[in-house]
Amino acid sequence: MGQAGGAGVLFATMGAMDLAVTSDSVIQPYHPPRPSDFTLPGKKAKRVVVLGAGVAGLACAYELGKAGYDCVVVEAQDHVGGRNFTVRGGTKHADLNGDTQTAAFGAGRYFNAGPARIAQWMITLDYCRELGVPLEVFVNVNADAYFYQEQSGMTKPARRRALRSDMYGYISELLAKATDQGALDQQMSADDKDSLLNFLSNFGRIGKRIPNDRARSWQYTGGPQRGYNTWPGATGTPGVLAGPPLSLSTVFGYEIGEELSFETDFEQSMVMLQPVGGMDAIPLALAKAVGAEKIKLSSPVTSVTNNPDRVSVAYKDANGAPQQIEADFCIATLPPNVLAKLTHNLGPDVQRGLTTFTQVAASKIGLEYKSRWWESDHRIYGGITETDLDLGQIWYPSDGFHSPGGVLVGYYNTDDDAKTYARLRPPERLERALAGGVKIHGPKHRTELANSFSIAWSVAPFIEGGWQNIPGGPQAPVFAPLNTAAGRVYFAGDWLSNEVSWQHGSFTSAQKAVTALHSRALAT
Amino acid sequence: MGQAGGAGVLFATMGAMDLAVTSDSVIQPYHPPRPSDFTLPGKKAKRVVVLGAGVAGLACAYELGKAGYDCVVVEAQDHVGGRNFTVRGGTKHADLNGDTQTAAFGAGRYFNAGPARIAQWMITLDYCRELGVPLEVFVNVNADAYFYQEQSGMTKPARRRALRSDMYGYISELLAKATDQGALDQQMSADDKDSLLNFLSNFGRIGKRIPNDRARSWQYTGGPQRGYNTWPGATGTPGVLAGPPLSLSTVFGYEIGEELSFETDFEQSMVMLQPVGGMDAIPLALAKAVGAEKIKLSSPVTSVTNNPDRVSVAYKDANGAPQQIEADFCIATLPPNVLAKLTHNLGPDVQRGLTTFTQVAASKIGLEYKSRWWESDHRIYGGITETDLDLGQIWYPSDGFHSPGGVLVGYYNTDDDAKTYARLRPPERLERALAGGVKIHGPKHRTELANSFSIAWSVAPFIEGGWQNIPGGPQAPVFAPLNTAAGRVYFAGDWLSNEVSWQHGSFTSAQKAVTALHSRALAT
Repeated sequence: MGQAGGAGVLFATMGAMDLAVTSDSVIQPYHPPRPSDFTLPGKKAKRVVVLGAGVAGLACAYELGKAGYDCVVVEAQDHVGGRNFTVRGGTKHADLNGDTQTAAFGAGRYFNAGPARIAQWMITLDYCRELGVPLEVFVNVNADAYFYQEQSGMTKPARRRALRSDMYGYISELLAKATDQGALDQQMSADDKDSLLNFLSNFGRIGKRIPNDRARSWQYTGGPQRGYNTWPGATGTPGVLAGPPLSLSTVFGYEIGEELSFETDFEQSMVMLQPVGGMDAIPLALAKAVGAEKIKLSSPVTSVTNNPDRVSVAYKDANGAPQQIEADFCIATLPPNVLAKLTHNLGPDVQRGLTTFTQVAASKIGLEYKSRWWESDHRIYGGITETDLDLGQIWYPSDGFHSPGGVLVGYYNTDDDAKTYARLRPPERLERALAGGVKIHGPKHRTELANSFSIAWSVAPFIEGGWQNIPGGPQAPVFAPLNTAAGRVYFAGDWLSNEVSWQHGSFTSAQKAVTALHSRALAT
Repeated sequence: MGQAGGAGVLFATMGAMDLAVTSDSVIQPYHPPRPSDFTLPGKKAKRVVVLGAGVAGLACAYELGKAGYDCVVVEAQDHVGGRNFTVRGGTKHADLNGDTQTAAFGAGRYFNAGPARIAQWMITLDYCRELGVPLEVFVNVNADAYFYQEQSGMTKPARRRALRSDMYGYISELLAKATDQGALDQQMSADDKDSLLNFLSNFGRIGKRIPNDRARSWQYTGGPQRGYNTWPGATGTPGVLAGPPLSLSTVFGYEIGEELSFETDFEQSMVMLQPVGGMDAIPLALAKAVGAEKIKLSSPVTSVTNNPDRVSVAYKDANGAPQQIEADFCIATLPPNVLAKLTHNLGPDVQRGLTTFTQVAASKIGLEYKSRWWESDHRIYGGITETDLDLGQIWYPSDGFHSPGGVLVGYYNTDDDAKTYARLRPPERLERALAGGVKIHGPKHRTELANSFSIAWSVAPFIEGGWQNIPGGPQAPVFAPLNTAAGRVYFAGDWLSNEVSWQHGSFTSAQKAVTALHSRALAT
């Protein structure tokens, strides 16, 4: 790792590297460009045109700016951030269906229409630290949020807590019985069996071995961890358990193993965080650091021409007039499907790479309510309800607890379900969101509604997708031309990373492109 | 439930009751006293003396105040809250060992020496709503916090994430093999087996069935959910997994089933919350609502005398002068071991109840650091590290992320370990906390320290214990005399509830005492 100083992210990285004793995870080393890189050798910083003011594009301009590059960022939309899009009162969105929505949310209310959570290991947090973006906890897992599996026969929602208890209980009972009956003697020593049985007792909250009674040994019969119908209170009120357990056939019949195990995913397990007041605090802080004068909004790119000595980028300015930028280098951060539609001379290998991606549809709706009935009536403070309705997930806000109202994510779905909602008009999406939500939360899901705002990323102009499918994976050879320069043109975006759809992918990809460009600029 | 209105908590309760459709949990019904209770019948509100300005005592005075009772609260310490005690710069604490500490924490830094988390189902939250105490998420479970089981042979800490993965993986592999080999055919249908195997695949991230290869079927071999040594980044950097799994013998040999299953406990599972800026926001808000003029601080009670027509309470005022209060009723909320030492005429059954409790020792230290190295170096944002050192737990702060420094809970232990620390002088406690912490976090646990403040509840004056052991449980007959009036004297506190050590217990017990007292006052 680096000899000399270097600010910000490197600092955090060095912190991690220093701690040789026990820290077991490190960020990929990265050396940001430094002011002295050009001043010391007496060279002039190069001019770079960045296509797209999403997180990757802004990060490129920000990092290059550390060494004094002359950057210009060209952005088709009237705001920075790309899919990092926070909707507030007054936010307008026109989609490719011809529908325009303007949010009427109350003051202080917001809806993160794109990314909405950051895992604690992600480099996104280092940018938040460096840029001074305040963070708070995002609740990704809530024991009291619901599952609603209508197609598997649920007639009312069940708490994650209760289902989890029943599944852990039954697997513990079954494995304890099998172990105790010697079914696994070939695989385990007597000591292992003892410690396994000890673990299962705690993990499944199962009963003890009962001598001469195999059936009733190690039995799972529910317990407080499933929840209560009436909570324990003062002496004399020990509480009424929300029992008994569901049957083994019922609970495993729901087939929610994948959804339940979400809570232990590398990307999804707690702790996760969010910027205070909306995710767009990140692109706004990046844009401020880059300098507003270097970002051309409402300026869709029309062509990219790689020349031996320069790159020419044509775009239409905010008045629709054609304009051209000449630069030493270009970093293209538009989604690959959008890039592929530009006029360019980057060659068939680049075009094949760009067109190999396919797009994952993703749709969301923000539902603003006059009261926080999910807190008062359901005792749910943040987290996610999982459904097998076409709604997909429902998210409860992780902030503003006990305030007069708030914004739920009324659906968050992908693929076919997201395409279904993309085809609907906004009022139809809302009606469908409410009809589904009422099944889970009861009438207040409809009656307390104040406002709504929906997004279908597959019909969002200049984006046209939630994120990318990467056939064969990011390291597949077809993408190699996108991971080196095509002449003077570099590429960056979460679609060129191992964390597609996460800002971590955008940032690490931006760092990679910046590193390659910068070392070339220094060498020439 | 109630015919007429009633404010605050009842409101929340009625909300819960209204939602007949799907809500499956309700708060125990409670009818707070109302102003009209006395004005309508033309009666005069009674005078009540409350012993102790902890959460239970303040809640009693607050609830009685709603109907205009003339309350006076007598408190031995110079601040309200009892064990709900938040330490900030300038906070002073003198203990029964003769040691006095004054905290030197920087501005905005705090340490919750007593209760520090609130589960989302707890009635404590309804009081926060009613009193306007702002809340934020408290991180109780963090996949990246550590386990350090020195006595079981760990030589360096392991992430919860990795241990959890290995344990879930092995139990899934073992149960899948046993199921597939027919060991459980008597207990499950073929359909059940299929859905169980499907669940185990997801839950344990195990491999598939491999035809004609039992040993390698359903095998657990680790995976991303265990964590990475180098995180996935840009294309070309897929990440380096954090090693192969530990062996089955090793991971179950740690015997951490109980600590791991903490995350699914009824009381401990997420979501949990904390008041912004310190837990004492709750007693401070209660005290403000009660009225400072009704709370006598630095006034230890010396005797309680029950008379046919009144209660007489003797205490020493802030100048040490003996004083006496006469009231219609008394609610005694001091810890039972402290109450038992007062001069009183409440009879042998009351005294037997009070002396049946035994005290659980609990100790904590707040360690203020100049930097948040646990975030930058360890990527830990809140949560708890579990150890088998006498430290017990180490807690990371859930707020102030990325700020220049912060306060860790350097140990939180109970019983014998807590008594060990209670016997030490504060500098000795600190040294022991640092020596243990360095084993887990490396040298910064010592070198970055700025200040510390320790509490040992067993030697805290007027409290003398962390919380109460309740032999036979709260409903045991020996406690019955404490759960009805002894003449004109009522009792309240978390020790008279089914949630001992939680503020929820204090509040529900206070509501019970207030309800009994009020219905008697209305009837006479």
